Amino acid sequence: MATIGDVAREAGVSRSTASYALSGKRPISEEVRRRVLAAAEALAYTPNAGARALATARTKVLGLLAQFHDDEFAPAMLQYILGVTNTARDLGYDTLLVTEADGVRALRRITDSRMVDGVVLMNIAQEDARLPILRAAPQPGALVGLPGDCSGLDVFDLDFEEAGRVMVDHLHRLGHRELILISHPEHVVERGGAYVWRLRDAALDRARRLGLTLHAVYGESRQPAVGRQLHRLLDAYPAATGLLINNEAAAAALPSVTYERGQRVPEDLSVIGRYSADFAATFSLPYSFVESAPDRLGSMAVRQLVRRVEST
Amino acid sequence: MATIGDVAREAGVSRSTASYALSGKRPISEEVRRRVLAAAEALAYTPNAGARALATARTKVLGLLAQFHDDEFAPAMLQYILGVTNTARDLGYDTLLVTEADGVRALRRITDSRMVDGVVLMNIAQEDARLPILRAAPQPGALVGLPGDCSGLDVFDLDFEEAGRVMVDHLHRLGHRELILISHPEHVVERGGAYVWRLRDAALDRARRLGLTLHAVYGESRQPAVGRQLHRLLDAYPAATGLLINNEAAAAALPSVTYERGQRVPEDLSVIGRYSADFAATFSLPYSFVESAPDRLGSMAVRQLVRRVEST
Repeated sequence: MATIGDVAREAGVSRSTASYALSGKRPISEEVRRRVLAAAEALAYTPNAGARALATARTKVLGLLAQFHDDEFAPAMLQYILGVTNTARDLGYDTLLVTEADGVRALRRITDSRMVDGVVLMNIAQEDARLPILRAAPQPGALVGLPGDCSGLDVFDLDFEEAGRVMVDHLHRLGHRELILISHPEHVVERGGAYVWRLRDAALDRARRLGLTLHAVYGESRQPAVGRQLHRLLDAYPAATGLLINNEAAAAALPSVTYERGQRVPEDLSVIGRYSADFAATFSLPYSFVESAPDRLGSMAVRQLVRRVEST
Repeated sequence: MATIGDVAREAGVSRSTASYALSGKRPISEEVRRRVLAAAEALAYTPNAGARALATARTKVLGLLAQFHDDEFAPAMLQYILGVTNTARDLGYDTLLVTEADGVRALRRITDSRMVDGVVLMNIAQEDARLPILRAAPQPGALVGLPGDCSGLDVFDLDFEEAGRVMVDHLHRLGHRELILISHPEHVVERGGAYVWRLRDAALDRARRLGLTLHAVYGESRQPAVGRQLHRLLDAYPAATGLLINNEAAAAALPSVTYERGQRVPEDLSVIGRYSADFAATFSLPYSFVESAPDRLGSMAVRQLVRRVEST
């Protein structure tokens, strides 16, 4: 592996001249600059990341804080992550994937040490303890998910209220009068996941205005619990002919449950979910759904973040 | 954010003394060292990552090269990745997730620039163009997946031959005489994915020895193509009562296909797959399976990698 010393030797200049020629930090004659660039190319010279970071105050790395909670469905989270990593690479950045449980400590570690030029935060809570740290950090940040207080932050999220209303309207138009809404687990709400009650409250409100009965329940997040729960719910509300699903694990488990019960969709039960087309294909789901565009949200967050990084 | 200068001022020592006291690079009196450590703690001082990397030649970051090919099933890949990131964090390392298409260029970029202390490679091909680069790199590497030439590398993989034999034996013991094996897509084989033909060849050999008929086909990787293909196969081989699945997308799609056909598992069709218990739960799969332990493989690869990093 070539060092800056090798490049200097090859070009017949001093180490500092080679360094200035490559960094553009000081004016160097065009002829010398060309010789140094040719030497760097001939030797396949790559600057040391640590040295480059110190010299340019840039690492070309973005941090991505994404936790995999047991009560959130990992394949759904993956789609957001791929939107981030793929877009980051397109824009010339690597991604430091940080999944540890202690998000406050993780964020402080990667921003204080200047390991990253900016951060994308996922799993946003209503009162998110990471946000004060992000606001005070020297690097910009972008959020996928809506916190209680957005001030000073770039935030990207689905309109969960509108999704809830669209789902109720869809089943209402089809003539259903009694509905069940299966939300994410209650743990997610307790942790501050506002997307759960934002959709739920809007759906309940719309159902009330339309004179529909809506049974709103918190779902499980893993098999076999979620399958058993779906059976129990369909037993408990035999008159409910419409099902709203804001819970990826429940959506994924539903086909096997209706199969076991001998119920047909949509003949016996109309179903509308909130997930992405890619998720629907991955899980072979035959239901209507509100597109949640996770890859686009991740991508938009990174584009905005890089804009901020490169304008400072 | 505190700098080393702030720490020095707080401790009443010079910048270089503070630096030596923290790095342990030169002997400093115990009393001064304590004063510097107390100041660093009081100011919540975190060393600059670039400076630390230059000073210690360590970044405390591991690279993870994991591509998401369209013909591989992303939720299956995710389990390997979580095994890596979670174990890395347990051992004090962050993970640079590199998903770009050009693996050779990516590996050269992150090793030449010393962005990482070591790398984990996934999506291993029989003749993998990244391996010569890894062997020449200053950092150690670990592979999840078996290449044609393992020399000088730490390799972690499932015994796919044994998995193929176990799957055939299982269906043979249950009395089935005509079987279908659905492998990963042919693209994966063309790209050098040895795990496809390793399982396939071993299954064909075992079936031949046992006097069974085994129809071995390459599967699709996405819905709706994979669902249509499953229908076609079950139509084409009506006497086949046993199904072997070495293709996560096909396993995930099968419940909806048997439901549409009115076939019951295991009454009408015996199925055995090769995936993990976590995958089975995520996709609500009711089949027998050979455990593929993706999280354990990722975790073992990282443990060995960190052992190598810390012994050099």
